[in-house]
Amino acid sequence: MARGKRNFDIIIEGGTLLTMVDGEDPLPGARVLISGDRIEEVSTRQNSPLPETNALISAEDAIILPGLINAHGHSPMTIFRGLADDLPLKTWLFDYIFPAEAKHLNPDTVYWGSLLGCLEMIASGTTTAVDSYFFADQIVRAADMAGIRALVAQGVIDFPAPGVPDPKENLDVGMAFLERWIDFSDRITPGLFCHSPITCSASTLRQAYEISTRFNLPLQIHLSETQEELEEIVEKTQLRPAFFLDDLGLLNSNLIAAHAVHVNDEEIDLLASREVKIAHCPESNMKLGSGIAAVPQMLRKGMTVGLGTDSCASNNNLDLFGEMDTAAKLAKVAFLDPTLLDAKSVVRMATIGGAQLIGLENEIGTIEKGKKADIIIISTKTPHMTPIYNPYSQIVYSATGADVRDVIINGTIVYRDRQFTTLDKAEILNEVEKIGQRIGAL
Amino acid sequence: MARGKRNFDIIIEGGTLLTMVDGEDPLPGARVLISGDRIEEVSTRQNSPLPETNALISAEDAIILPGLINAHGHSPMTIFRGLADDLPLKTWLFDYIFPAEAKHLNPDTVYWGSLLGCLEMIASGTTTAVDSYFFADQIVRAADMAGIRALVAQGVIDFPAPGVPDPKENLDVGMAFLERWIDFSDRITPGLFCHSPITCSASTLRQAYEISTRFNLPLQIHLSETQEELEEIVEKTQLRPAFFLDDLGLLNSNLIAAHAVHVNDEEIDLLASREVKIAHCPESNMKLGSGIAAVPQMLRKGMTVGLGTDSCASNNNLDLFGEMDTAAKLAKVAFLDPTLLDAKSVVRMATIGGAQLIGLENEIGTIEKGKKADIIIISTKTPHMTPIYNPYSQIVYSATGADVRDVIINGTIVYRDRQFTTLDKAEILNEVEKIGQRIGAL
Repeated sequence: MARGKRNFDIIIEGGTLLTMVDGEDPLPGARVLISGDRIEEVSTRQNSPLPETNALISAEDAIILPGLINAHGHSPMTIFRGLADDLPLKTWLFDYIFPAEAKHLNPDTVYWGSLLGCLEMIASGTTTAVDSYFFADQIVRAADMAGIRALVAQGVIDFPAPGVPDPKENLDVGMAFLERWIDFSDRITPGLFCHSPITCSASTLRQAYEISTRFNLPLQIHLSETQEELEEIVEKTQLRPAFFLDDLGLLNSNLIAAHAVHVNDEEIDLLASREVKIAHCPESNMKLGSGIAAVPQMLRKGMTVGLGTDSCASNNNLDLFGEMDTAAKLAKVAFLDPTLLDAKSVVRMATIGGAQLIGLENEIGTIEKGKKADIIIISTKTPHMTPIYNPYSQIVYSATGADVRDVIINGTIVYRDRQFTTLDKAEILNEVEKIGQRIGAL
Repeated sequence: MARGKRNFDIIIEGGTLLTMVDGEDPLPGARVLISGDRIEEVSTRQNSPLPETNALISAEDAIILPGLINAHGHSPMTIFRGLADDLPLKTWLFDYIFPAEAKHLNPDTVYWGSLLGCLEMIASGTTTAVDSYFFADQIVRAADMAGIRALVAQGVIDFPAPGVPDPKENLDVGMAFLERWIDFSDRITPGLFCHSPITCSASTLRQAYEISTRFNLPLQIHLSETQEELEEIVEKTQLRPAFFLDDLGLLNSNLIAAHAVHVNDEEIDLLASREVKIAHCPESNMKLGSGIAAVPQMLRKGMTVGLGTDSCASNNNLDLFGEMDTAAKLAKVAFLDPTLLDAKSVVRMATIGGAQLIGLENEIGTIEKGKKADIIIISTKTPHMTPIYNPYSQIVYSATGADVRDVIINGTIVYRDRQFTTLDKAEILNEVEKIGQRIGAL
């Protein structure tokens, strides 16, 4: 290295930078300097020569954005994408999804499904996945290979489950999972995911909470996704679900509650006061006819809300750009107010909101000096992205995941000029096609 | 030509064909033979040698679908894409859109904006546009150059409008427009578009209807897009809007009503009995906070419903794949029934439904012998399209417009391997960027 001249691992040069730091404006002609896994400097290229670098990424005609954070998903379920749609919820679950899971899930199918999920997430700009399913070791394996950042949780349910035939062992399996992966990687955090307050007993919920607290890890749960679930809990406990979970001592800032569609004002106040984090999944909630979460109200109460795709069995893709668009539009039409969830708020939800959801707001979610280099570059020299008056609008209302050109995670370029650097796309598509054929694909 | 051996202009070979003909199943390994502007034969490649052709398009790992029909749009408004979002409706219109139109619309900006719209529609699989705006001659010019099929209507409004400063002349301008283009092209049909029952007087509406009838052309109108509009008409006429239009004699199968959000049961029955066609624009209705059209009810009444993007000032793209996805999901969550607007119904709405809307159901909207060759090919060898259990699901819930690889309109390949053959993309983006900069783009 020449004296006085730093060499950076990656430099991103040109383009409009959206740092997503509160109060910062879009920065044109940006320069982002990356060393190792961290952002070293955020500046503009104006009046200063280009430092040396191993990898120069031009972001001319592009937007530079923090990597998106998928706040709720089950990536292995890519193998069931489109298997059963447009059905009543119970038919969908009991006649299609549960039997398919029972018959076709094993470590191998979960592994390849997770890899397909990683391919899809990376290609559409997701750099962090909050994921959960059975055979979660395989999700860890896939996330590790893909180079994606992830909170991977082992599913806990008081029914015989794939890989956990005896529900009595579900917490032992979960605990062993945490022990196995807790010190494994800087990028991958293990966790537990209690399926829901109706499919897990009070005792299971309490123990899962205790284990998560002991490991200082977030606990995930589905909360009040459907009206039926709400009614079942009220009948069983005489409490609305949030109050039931509060009675069990589960509500605090370590709890990530997905959906939260059927929560009333008192429950929102309670969840807000306990600092519970919400994973909003608008497309899944729409497609299953579940209902509409009161996200604007949650944000007004100061709650942390991330944005999730849910699984490919209920969405059917992992594109957070589509999810941002839908989240913004759904809030407007649901509450008949076009000013709700403006574009910037929605981008915030999919970036720093997701980071806060998993307690990584000091590491990821914005582009600023010292943070991990999780960055995406979005092409704008296309018909549907021209002209640009407001880059936040363009991202939310005009773009799709297909506009993502480059993806950097933890300082590694995992997707460059739309080519994967860590994963073998052809092999993964081929393996999942074979799995699909066994399940019944065309 | 060798004796007994036909030469076809285009052959599409392989892939899964969705003809969208009622009762026909997806056809794997399809072969579509095209001569001139028409489909000559639809078969499979099994056991029969490939005929000679000038252009062989392989559709291996792809879905072959009738070109999509955008039932309602204002393509020149691409120049205002993202100019003003997340605002109260009146602020949006009166503080942003109307002043921008007054200041920046002229034949030149409308022409380039229309060309950008054509680029975007073609690249996302739209082969027919039902379009309307001021300076409509320029839309015709652009559609002609692009090779897209279009019903292009000149806007009629009883206010000073771009290109029509004196509203007294709006119908003369409209009539001259029809006369100018009625015999111009097989692909392009002129028409009139009355802005709405509140911005056009009863006399204007009646005359526009008479002129359209005289030319045997469809008449377009915005109907009950917002609650305010509904209330204004009820106050002015003591009639709900559909009944008001019926009193004027406007309701029949030549009328295309866009939006139809705030129509009650009696109005739906009336519109159905008069065979009025509906252009459903779910994304625009959501984004402006207008409300949700009762499309499942309209379809149950046997109404013709097409799917439209509306303009880029209220959406902000022209991607009908996103619109299909949103239409399906919105109906399910609005009426809390996941079986509503299933994937196939939505694809039907965007293809043959759109064809019926403009009275071209015998010419376009399905892939069958004798129809015009308006065909798109959708790539499926990608992470988010793998595996495939149901191609309709895949199109509606997994794909975006970016998955469109090839587009044929009227027997001409206008987009091949994602390259435009009729339009100069770089020039159009450049011209619209310059227009955007004058308006205030980044």
